[in-house]
Amino acid sequence: MARRSEHTKEELREMAVTAAEGMVVAQGISGISARKVAAEMGYTAGTLYLLFRNLDELITEVNIRTLHQLESQIKAAVEGEGSPVAAIHAIAQSYLRYAHIHTNRWLALFEHRLGGETFPAHYHKQVARLFALVETPLREIRGSALPQPEIAKEARALWAGVHGLAALAEGDKLNADGTEPASILELLVDRIVGVEK
Amino acid sequence: MARRSEHTKEELREMAVTAAEGMVVAQGISGISARKVAAEMGYTAGTLYLLFRNLDELITEVNIRTLHQLESQIKAAVEGEGSPVAAIHAIAQSYLRYAHIHTNRWLALFEHRLGGETFPAHYHKQVARLFALVETPLREIRGSALPQPEIAKEARALWAGVHGLAALAEGDKLNADGTEPASILELLVDRIVGVEK
Repeated sequence: MARRSEHTKEELREMAVTAAEGMVVAQGISGISARKVAAEMGYTAGTLYLLFRNLDELITEVNIRTLHQLESQIKAAVEGEGSPVAAIHAIAQSYLRYAHIHTNRWLALFEHRLGGETFPAHYHKQVARLFALVETPLREIRGSALPQPEIAKEARALWAGVHGLAALAEGDKLNADGTEPASILELLVDRIVGVEK
Repeated sequence: MARRSEHTKEELREMAVTAAEGMVVAQGISGISARKVAAEMGYTAGTLYLLFRNLDELITEVNIRTLHQLESQIKAAVEGEGSPVAAIHAIAQSYLRYAHIHTNRWLALFEHRLGGETFPAHYHKQVARLFALVETPLREIRGSALPQPEIAKEARALWAGVHGLAALAEGDKLNADGTEPASILELLVDRIVGVEK
């Protein structure tokens, strides 16, 4: 076992989140245990509980990393899209690809449920950044006449549709007889945005 | 332990599915174990494996019961709706309510993933019955001009939107600042159907 003084608290937290992240990528959220994370860090589980109140707090940090990764990939996908409608389609398809390629990480975002407790402010802030990616082109399409609460509502309807499609496609629950998820997603986005590409 | 000859194979299967169902309702899919199911039946885990190839097969049977229950509740919600557009809204809101009230059962439908294996034919048949509930009013709205594959595609877009909204709402991932999920769902259905109520 390493001695505690070898690492700062910030280093220890980062080591723990990175270890837990590897477990989520490999096995999903059920692959994380305090014992395994501590062992990978070379510390005891006791040390881990000096760094995080509980396993939920650690998983939340892994999920915030996933939200950051998702944001970067979506931003990269949107770059170079000429119109706001094309940008929304690119965001949707990029989300679908992310769920397909990083399935365990992406599932961990949704399988992690806090019974009663609430997520910390910096988690909600990162989720808000993702919603903003959709709200920006939506506002361009709708113009300034549509009040912000309506833009937020439309963005959530879009996000729900895109997430639901990814969830059904990845879980093999779409029963779509060979129709590609990407093509159903295109229809869904077209309808919600209401303007053809 | 009960003697095996006391119950027919069909009775034993039903006892097992009912025991597992109770565990899903109480604790979700992670609450099921072969040992616990067998104990509740008064048999050994060995007997359980004479009835089901594996735990996945048992969970699939529980999920088929959930799909039946969901179908009944949606059918009851649609009854008396005057127009096909109103029927689709009723289906969507009924799904959202089901997810909220029977959260563990509903989550089990989506958390149960078969790595590589496929679901049995009678599972897919039950899923198809649910999709048909949406396809019927959609066909009434679109008329006979729209080919069946297009109806199926629209139904899947709708179902994805409704499922995604329920998933984000139940997981506290909607970040909607007090906007009711039901009102976002109404917008989503309006847009996909394209005809106001």
